[in-house]
Order: sequence, then C-alpha cells, then structure tokens
Amino acid sequence: MTTIGFIGLGVMGAPMAANLVAAGFDVTGYNRTPAKAEPLVEAGGSAAPSVADAVRGADVVITVLPDSPDVEAVVLGDDGVFAHVAPGTLVIDMSTIHPDVARRLAGAGAARDIQVLDAPVSGGEQGAIDAKLSIMVGGDAAAFEAAKPVLDAMGTTVVHVGPAGAGQTVKAANQLIVAGVLELVSESLVFLDAHGVDLERAVQVLAGGMAGNAVLDRKAAGMLARNFSPGFRVDLHHKDLGIVTSAAREAGVAIPLGALVASLMGAARAQGHGALDHSALLLQVEQLSGRSGPSS
Amino acid sequence: MTTIGFIGLGVMGAPMAANLVAAGFDVTGYNRTPAKAEPLVEAGGSAAPSVADAVRGADVVITVLPDSPDVEAVVLGDDGVFAHVAPGTLVIDMSTIHPDVARRLAGAGAARDIQVLDAPVSGGEQGAIDAKLSIMVGGDAAAFEAAKPVLDAMGTTVVHVGPAGAGQTVKAANQLIVAGVLELVSESLVFLDAHGVDLERAVQVLAGGMAGNAVLDRKAAGMLARNFSPGFRVDLHHKDLGIVTSAAREAGVAIPLGALVASLMGAARAQGHGALDHSALLLQVEQLSGRSGPSS
Amino acid sequence: MTTIGFIGLGVMGAPMAANLVAAGFDVTGYNRTPAKAEPLVEAGGSAAPSVADAVRGADVVITVLPDSPDVEAVVLGDDGVFAHVAPGTLVIDMSTIHPDVARRLAGAGAARDIQVLDAPVSGGEQGAIDAKLSIMVGGDAAAFEAAKPVLDAMGTTVVHVGPAGAGQTVKAANQLIVAGVLELVSESLVFLDAHGVDLERAVQVLAGGMAGNAVLDRKAAGMLARNFSPGFRVDLHHKDLGIVTSAAREAGVAIPLGALVASLMGAARAQGHGALDHSALLLQVEQLSGRSGPSS
Amino acid sequence: MTTIGFIGLGVMGAPMAANLVAAGFDVTGYNRTPAKAEPLVEAGGSAAPSVADAVRGADVVITVLPDSPDVEAVVLGDDGVFAHVAPGTLVIDMSTIHPDVARRLAGAGAARDIQVLDAPVSGGEQGAIDAKLSIMVGGDAAAFEAAKPVLDAMGTTVVHVGPAGAGQTVKAANQLIVAGVLELVSESLVFLDAHGVDLERAVQVLAGGMAGNAVLDRKAAGMLARNFSPGFRVDLHHKDLGIVTSAAREAGVAIPLGALVASLMGAARAQGHGALDHSALLLQVEQLSGRSGPSS
Repeated sequence: MTTIGFIGLGVMGAPMAANLVAAGFDVTGYNRTPAKAEPLVEAGGSAAPSVADAVRGADVVITVLPDSPDVEAVVLGDDGVFAHVAPGTLVIDMSTIHPDVARRLAGAGAARDIQVLDAPVSGGEQGAIDAKLSIMVGGDAAAFEAAKPVLDAMGTTVVHVGPAGAGQTVKAANQLIVAGVLELVSESLVFLDAHGVDLERAVQVLAGGMAGNAVLDRKAAGMLARNFSPGFRVDLHHKDLGIVTSAAREAGVAIPLGALVASLMGAARAQGHGALDHSALLLQVEQLSGRSGPSS
Repeated sequence: MTTIGFIGLGVMGAPMAANLVAAGFDVTGYNRTPAKAEPLVEAGGSAAPSVADAVRGADVVITVLPDSPDVEAVVLGDDGVFAHVAPGTLVIDMSTIHPDVARRLAGAGAARDIQVLDAPVSGGEQGAIDAKLSIMVGGDAAAFEAAKPVLDAMGTTVVHVGPAGAGQTVKAANQLIVAGVLELVSESLVFLDAHGVDLERAVQVLAGGMAGNAVLDRKAAGMLARNFSPGFRVDLHHKDLGIVTSAAREAGVAIPLGALVASLMGAARAQGHGALDHSALLLQVEQLSGRSGPSS
Repeated sequence: MTTIGFIGLGVMGAPMAANLVAAGFDVTGYNRTPAKAEPLVEAGGSAAPSVADAVRGADVVITVLPDSPDVEAVVLGDDGVFAHVAPGTLVIDMSTIHPDVARRLAGAGAARDIQVLDAPVSGGEQGAIDAKLSIMVGGDAAAFEAAKPVLDAMGTTVVHVGPAGAGQTVKAANQLIVAGVLELVSESLVFLDAHGVDLERAVQVLAGGMAGNAVLDRKAAGMLARNFSPGFRVDLHHKDLGIVTSAAREAGVAIPLGALVASLMGAARAQGHGALDHSALLLQVEQLSGRSGPSS
Repeated sequence: MTTIGFIGLGVMGAPMAANLVAAGFDVTGYNRTPAKAEPLVEAGGSAAPSVADAVRGADVVITVLPDSPDVEAVVLGDDGVFAHVAPGTLVIDMSTIHPDVARRLAGAGAARDIQVLDAPVSGGEQGAIDAKLSIMVGGDAAAFEAAKPVLDAMGTTVVHVGPAGAGQTVKAANQLIVAGVLELVSESLVFLDAHGVDLERAVQVLAGGMAGNAVLDRKAAGMLARNFSPGFRVDLHHKDLGIVTSAAREAGVAIPLGALVASLMGAARAQGHGALDHSALLLQVEQLSGRSGPSS
C-alpha cells in the first residue's frame, strides 16, 4: 500500500488528506498547529509531531502550504522533506507558488534523485471536500503517471500541462481568470442593482448563457446573501495575483485586465476585507460607487 | 394556432424563426435582404415582402435587429409594426438595444394598447440553432406569461427579470461579463503560450475548476484553431459595450473593468477585426505583446 | 467700440466678462439667476433681463454655459441668440460641449449668415480671473481673426486649432489629460503617504522634474490642505469625460487610460463628491485603499 | 578640496560627473566600459581602472547604475565601495532602485560608520547636461547637509524628503506620474489625429492650460517628429514601474492607473520598442488603434 506524508492540513489540505484515506492510502499528516490534524485522525489517518516523522519512509509526500517561503522552508529546510526522504520518493507540491520556485524545487530534487511535481489545484474548499478539484500538473511525464492514482483521489480533472513549473503557470492563469470574473460579476451586480433589476433572477439567466461561469454557479448566491465566510481568502488571492503579474512581466506579456484586477483585489484587502472570501471583491465594487449593499 | 410575424432573419433570427415553425407556430418572416428569408420558407414558414405584410393580423410580432435605430424604425416608423398591428397584439423585441429605447417602445405601445416586451438573448448562434438560448425578459408580468410558450420554443432559460427595459439591462450586464471573460481568457492564453505551456491541456484543466466559463467551453477551441468566423461580431459587441458604459454612467455606478474592456474591444475593431467573431479579442491581446499567434 | 452680449455669468463667465470690460469692450450680460450679473455691473458692464435683450444689436455674442443642451437652447431656441442677432454677427461659444453639437451650431449659423466659433477654455477659475486662460478655437480662419482681440482679453494662449468642432475636440483631450494627471497625482500622494514620506517636500521635488505638471503647481497644495472648494466641479469633469469617451468611440480610437480614469471620476461622483473641486479625485483614491487622509 | 569617486558614466552619469568637475570638485570616475570615461577625462576629471581605485581615499562616492543588483554588487561586493572607503565617507547612490535595497545599503553602511544617501534624479539627459536635475534625497539630515554642495552642482531642485529609502520612494512616484502622463499625451495625440486636428497647435494650447506638463514641454515635439532616440529608454522605465507596483503592494495601496500604465509600458517593450525613448509609448497607443502615425 502506498504511504503518503501530508504536510499542511488547512482549509484545503484537511479534506484532501481525508479523501486520500477514503481512497485507501495510508496517510500520515503534519500541521504546525497540531489541532488541525485531528480531522485526519478521525478520518482514519495518523498525525505526526514533525515534518520528519510525517515523511520518513513515505512513498509519496504532498505539501499544501500558503506561500513560496513556507514551501521552501518545509521542503528544503535543514529538518525538512528532502532531508528525511529516500531517493526515489515522489514529492508533490500542491500549494500555489511562483513557477520559478517550483522549478527550483524540481532542480533541487533531481540533484537528490527525488522526483518533484508542481500540482496546484482549483475548485475551492467545496471541490476539495467533494474530491472534485481541477489539478494542473507540471513535471516529468513518468512522475505524473506515478502520481496519477494519488491525484485522482482528490480531483476529477487531473491534467499534465508541461514540464516543472507549468502547473504553477496554469494555476496563475486560473487565478487571473477567477479574479477577473469575480470583479466582472461584482460590477454587473452593482450595475443591475442600481437599475432596480431583480438580482436573483438576473443571476439565473446570466448563468444560462454565454456569460455563464463557475463564479455565478458557486459564488453568486453567497454574494447576494452577503455571506463572505471563506472559502478562499482575499489575502491569498492577492498573493496569487502578485505571482501572476510578476510572471507576466518575466514572460514579456501585457495583461491589462489582469493588472487592473490585481490592483482592485489589493484595494479590497486595503479596505480591510483580507480575511473574507475572495467574493468580497463585491464590497470593493460597492464602495467604489458609494453603495453599501443591494437596495432591496 | 398562434401566428407570428418575425422581422429580422440574420445569423440569430433565422434559426430562431425556424425553431418557432418546428414548435408548431405559423411564422411569416421579413428581412430587408429577401434571400435571407429562404431558410424560413424551407423550414415551413412564409416570407413576406414588407414589414406590413409580415405583421398584419399576427398575434405576436418578434423583432431581431442589429441596433436601436433599426428597431425604432421598424417598430415606430410610418409603415412599421405599430402602424399595422391590431390593439392587443404582443410585440417582443429580441434585439440588443439601449434600455432607454426599450422603455420608450413599451410606452409607445401602451398608448396604442399594444403589449411590448424586451427579450434579448444570450447563447450565440449555436444556442439559437439548438433552441438553447437564455432569454432575459422585461415588461408586464401578464405579457410575459402570454409570451412564455413562444419564448420556450427558442430557449431553455427564459426568465422575467423586471419591468420594461430590465431585459435589456440584464443583457447589458451579460455583454459586460462576456467581453471581460473573452479578454481574460485571451490574456491567459497569451501568458501561457509565452511560458511554453500546452494550451489545449491548459484549457481543459482551467475549464474544470473555479475558472470554468462558457467562453472556455464554447470558444477556446476555435481561438486555438484561429477560427474567428462569426458567431457574434466584434462590431456588434463594440456597439453593445457602448450601451453598457452609457447605462452605467446613467445609473451612477463605476465599472472599471467594464470600462477597460470596452476600450480594448474598440481597439480590436480599430485594428480591423470588426467583422470577425468577438473571440478575435485574442488578436488584440497578441498584438499588445507583439505576438502573432501561438508559438507552437 | 465693439459691443458684446455675454450669456452665462457663473464661476468662469463672470470674471471673463469683467476682463472684457477692463479691456474696453461694451459688455451686456445675462444670467438665468439675475444676482449673478451684479459683479459685471460693478465692473462697468450692463445686465439684461433676457437673452434677447443681451444680444440684440451686439457685434459679438459669447456663451459660457454648463452643457450641450443649455447651449442648444440658448443659441437655437425660439427666443434665443440666433433669433435676435443680425446677419454678420460673430457668436463664440466658450462652453465645453460635444464636438458634434459645436459643428451643428456652426452649420445652423452658416445658414443664417452668422459666424460661429467653438472656443472652450482651460486654466480654471484662477486663469479666468487673471485673464490667463488657454483658449482652443475651432471654426473659420477669418472669424478667428475677427475674434482674436476679444479672446486676447481673456487668455494668454489663444490658438486656432482647426475647423468647426476642433476647439471642442482639443478641449476633450485637455480634459482627458487633466483628469488623468489628477488621478496620477492622487495615487502618488496616497502611495507616498503610505510610505511615510513628507508630502510637501515630495510635491516640491516632483514638480521640478519630468513629472512636473500644472496640477502639481496649482492643485497639490489645496489637496494636501484638504481644501476641495471648487474650482471646477467633479460633476462637470464627469460630464466632460462622457464627451471624451464618446468622441473616442466615434473616431475609432482606444484610450485605455482615459476610459479608466473616466470610470474613476464617475466613482468620485457616485461617492458623493460631485460638488467638490475635481482635485477631490484624491478622496476616491484614498477610499480605494481604505485610507481617510494623510497620516500626518 | 572635496574628492569624489564616481561609479557609472552612462547617459546620465557622464554629464553629471562633468558638472561636478566644472563646479570645482576633484572627480575620479570608473565605468565598466572604459571608453565611457573619456568625456570625464576631457572635462578635467580622472579615470580609474577599477571601483577600488576610483573610491579609495575619496571624501564622497557617487553611484549612477542601471538597477538594484548593479548597485548591490558595486557597493557591497567583495571588491566594492564599502571594502575600500574609510569610515566617515559619504556614499550617495543616485541610481533608481527599490526603496528596500536603498534601506539595506543604508543599514550596511551604518554598520561600518559610512553614511549612505539615496538620491535618485529626475529631469532626463538634458537635465543632467544642464545641471538642472530634480534630486530627491533620503537619509540622515546631517548627511544631506554634507552632500548638499555636491548635489547642487548637478541639480536645481535638491530636496531632503525623509529617511533612508524615501528618495527612492519619491522617485517611484515620479516614474509613475511620468509614465502616466506619457500615456495620456499619447492617447490624446492619437485621439486628436483621428479627428483631423492640427497636432502642433493642439500641443501648444494644451501646454498653456491646466493640462500643461513637462512631457508636453520637452517630449511632444520629438513625438510629433517621430524622434524616439533616447533619452530614457522604455526598458528602464519598465524596470522602474516594476519597482512602483511592488512598492505599492508592500505599502497596501491600490494604484489602478499606475497598474494599467505599467502593463502598457510592458506592451511597448514587448512590441520591440525597449531601446527607444520612453516617449515611444506613443507607438503602443497607435498600434492599439491600428494606426501607424499621424495622418498628416
């Protein structure tokens, strides 16, 4: 049986690890705040007191962490993943980090005969719980084949998009589109509300045509109900958009809508909404027009 | 049997009229270019030589025309719809026009005891052919109920969103979202191509997660194949975005992403792509970064 | 001696008319609110009870009014300028209106043998008081020569920029630049304040280099002192940016920064700052980042 | 007599060093490409074969280098400035770099009892030649007083704007405003040309009013003549806008116009204009609207 060391049991990591247990894998998890490992134990996995204990002897190591420095520390650190796994181990980083860092990890792994994949996800907390994530994978094709059964236990769309870093690049594009669509839907709701249109019916009909999108399907009801409990936090989406804009600069491409929505997500954060779900971009759009919520 | 006079048998109008025939309605069509009425005749409808002949005696009149002045001329003109229909007739304008004009038509109809609905559609040529349009209806609730069986023959999502003009307001929001998503997808494709990512696989995985949208589902394959035959022309979307920005001004709301994408759609037109499908927004994004198409 | 009928004695018109008196012209003014004609009378001019009385027998008629409909009503109305002046009269509209309307007035004048110039101004209330306006003139070259002595009494930069409407087109470009610079200066001040920089010294050094501009010279001190008494109101600049964006559409050119700043000026208005000086764009920028003013 | 070691004799550095010689300072220069030191020798200064030789024994060291890594290497490197100057030396970095790097240099200097100022400049090549630069200085007040006579030999507006890093922060704001104004002027010229307006006269009148700015005064004539020889290159302005956007993120402020113009400057670079003067932003605006230059 494949044994998995799982580092990072937060909003996303916890249900992903539980789904691995449900699929029959032997999962040992670690989280800096130990209490967050409890759901994994209840689901039938184990909790380890350190990264070293979680990954020692594992066939596969998965990391789901907030940002590039976290991943670098956990994977490359003195007492980190690479220091405790055997050659031949497969390390899958499912965090959202800069493509450059993903390539650096892959290179450092190759030097130790450790295979590294970047495999960030899309689909949100609900997608993680339902094992319906989209997983965009960069790295060696053989490593992808080896990882596929593991990834299939967490997502429904698991695609090998290119070499090391490519997964993170696609994730960056994903975050660009999601932020932009959140802003477009928010601008539309404020526009429609100002015109006195019934917003629930408008969302229903917009979702059925060419304007249809996952934000309308999964987020609009919460936005109308003014329920901004995360989900995926504005703070994290703001971080991700920093990756997008810097990766676009590095590639020498101009993304004007992306640049503008990155600025507006930053505004949402500056206005104090950083800890809310990213659909709280609506609050920024409302404030821009001096409005405090749907008129009805 | 309900008789329908149908004015405007273009890319959208022709299949919509044919679907009405298929649903058992008695349809007489008129188009300024008579040859465009031939498909309707082949489908079992009739062609009339004038607006007057098409609408005289009809229970329901439907108009599907390019722009506000066309609709005003056809409906209000000396030899137009209102001049030739009986009191009690139901007139459904399914064009995309300014909400103000829709309200004016409704008012002019009410003065003649003619019921007028604004019922613009979303879903594109394919949605029209498949009778799977989203139809957003503004006007009197009783008129909506009367129109419902007719509209159901053309679409799957038929929603009454508010009083006269509300249908056009929701359509404006629809066009804002669609333009924005086309631009976001285009920026993402150029970004991914510059990073050497496999675009087909990227589209596949993006479509499966929170970034999923109808543009990825229905347009991205054509964009990658560089097939920009319309579909819905850049020229018409540019016209619609003029409605969006002016309706936002009138409502006193700021739509920064909408304003920017309206400018960029105008750029696509100024670059000579006006007659192409609106997914040719990709060409504008490529030109912005000095690129002439996917590198592979 | 040249006699001048002057319609519109507001913030701009009143000092402009007074400067004409000071330059030796015989000026009869009219304003809808009669009290506003008092400063002109004190300056040595006359007040008339109607447009007709102000312009009858005048050699030159000048209009300085808020918007296109006002100018059309005053010039073309039943009891308006054209109805009461003799053939050969020179009519100079110094309002800021749509170039199309300026061309229509010129055409209507030509049909009556009345010469019409569009001659909008830049320089603000202070420029009007000091007779240091920039005046951008569209129309017939001979009419421009005839008008030059009159215009020289109100401004220091008086330039014939092209045929009828060209003055308004240049004014539109002027308003685009001014709005954009106000936003750029506002963004810079908020940026610098967030970094703890001394704003007065920063303004001093920015004004001395390539970033130097009239907004830094004339408006920044007021912005730092949070003095937003108009001056030129946000409401009027918002109106003018509607002209800019529509004239850009008509010319088939994309102005992305212009489109965005037009949206942000609309936001300032929607936030309730419409009656403040347009430098209150700073308040919109502060609100965007959740700030309520300089930290020091 | 004060002796000055001057590192970096490019487009800006060479005339700045020559002005120091003209003011009576004893200047020894170093440039990686030795030929670039010749003008300094002709002006009466000396050339050194290494950084070490240029700075050893100097009272003041000045650096004018392209980017943060260059400055860090020259100042902090094993054979760099700090390795060869005595305690008490004053080091003035006049490059444009990230405020964070400026603060790091100041800290590293303080640990060695070396005073460090960040003193970036604005005014362009002409300002450097004419000793009319604006110089924005961050660092200790006493160090500023000591540096003042040296800086006065290169500029006319020399202002102490705050502690270490503040000079670079103000320079970032300067680059934000200059880029934005270049884009606004470019959009205006394309807009006016499309309307058939005489561009030279338009520039003249725009420069005289509230839209007046240094770009119109110093750059517009070259833009109309399509002379884009640098000056200040698009590549460098693009680099600087990367500093601006990242410093805005760090400060938690949203700069929407700044974000958009940074994207458009990146487009100018991606279109192949990186080596041209930054006023070549005009070419990007023309391309956006499918235009290839003034119609007349």
